[in-house]
Amino acid sequence: MENNPTAPVVDVPGARSRGRGRRPADEVRGDVLRAVGELMLGEGIADLTFERVARLSGVSKTTLYKWWPSKGALALDGYFHAVQETLAFPDTGDIRADLLDQLHAFVRLMTTTPGGRILAELIGESQTDKDLAVAYRNLYSSGRRALAGERLVRAQEQGQLRDDVDVQVVVDQLWGAVYHRLLIPDEPLTEGFVESLVDNLLGGIARR
Amino acid sequence: MENNPTAPVVDVPGARSRGRGRRPADEVRGDVLRAVGELMLGEGIADLTFERVARLSGVSKTTLYKWWPSKGALALDGYFHAVQETLAFPDTGDIRADLLDQLHAFVRLMTTTPGGRILAELIGESQTDKDLAVAYRNLYSSGRRALAGERLVRAQEQGQLRDDVDVQVVVDQLWGAVYHRLLIPDEPLTEGFVESLVDNLLGGIARR
Repeated sequence: MENNPTAPVVDVPGARSRGRGRRPADEVRGDVLRAVGELMLGEGIADLTFERVARLSGVSKTTLYKWWPSKGALALDGYFHAVQETLAFPDTGDIRADLLDQLHAFVRLMTTTPGGRILAELIGESQTDKDLAVAYRNLYSSGRRALAGERLVRAQEQGQLRDDVDVQVVVDQLWGAVYHRLLIPDEPLTEGFVESLVDNLLGGIARR
Repeated sequence: MENNPTAPVVDVPGARSRGRGRRPADEVRGDVLRAVGELMLGEGIADLTFERVARLSGVSKTTLYKWWPSKGALALDGYFHAVQETLAFPDTGDIRADLLDQLHAFVRLMTTTPGGRILAELIGESQTDKDLAVAYRNLYSSGRRALAGERLVRAQEQGQLRDDVDVQVVVDQLWGAVYHRLLIPDEPLTEGFVESLVDNLLGGIARR
């Protein structure tokens, strides 16, 4: 893509430009999101500023504001990219094992990195900040929902889940249940909790 | 209780005192909580002030602050009492019918009264306000969890739910799933959603 003369390009001041002064926009965006993601997972959201991201990524504040109109939008996009690999949905053909894998990784991210606090505060603020609520859905949650839904639909195609199940409801009963304990911590987020979530939902809780 | 001379009493200025000037504290608290609950379900939380509650209930602001140290605490206690009847857990001996009943009432409260907005904003603010987070758990969520848990344990005793199921995880997979859609509204809170929640969890989603 770097050599495609029709790709959008952007002025990049400073050290990271490769002697040409202009690089494909996608590549620059990727660098910025990487810098933002590392900052957030390392330190949390409090010290995230456009100033600092401009310095770290070598991209002008004007360009940053053009792409991400608010700190919330920048944070969410950076976070989505930072956790994409950790929260990938494996497909070994065994939906039970794959759900346990992914949910354990998700709970670890929520409990052992600033990730949990970041999401909780963004969701919290989005209850009264409409722009942030829209950014949260567009840049984070709806994308995560879609990825989870795809894996669950494949499990239906593989004959492991019932065809008549609305996979988006399953998202609320697994990941939504984790968010519930994250946001209203009456009960702890443990490995046993993850196992119960999957057992209850796959096998059902009614006595036969 | 009103005639029990050892019951705690409280000075009540104004019209509601019954000619004695002092009434049992429990009775006065009940009046205050009723006034707060009506105010919240009618108008929401924005216009709730100690000033106004003092005027409506005839209880001095000093007494109000003694019992509820913050607006959040007053709001949560009033809300809990206001919804207690609507959100009661029926016990007809049929856990499926009873869960559907209660969850439909809960979703209606969230979608057709200011209740949904009130809870969303209180949960939102409690992400950064530690005192409010403690009040939320002590005055609202842990009590609601306990009531749901009691009904689910009775269903286990009645032989309708498996004995090895952790009922508190079920709370996250039913009511927690509703909160997930309330707080992150990627998908709507519908009657069909409630039915899917109960079907998925009681019967299981794995293909047999």
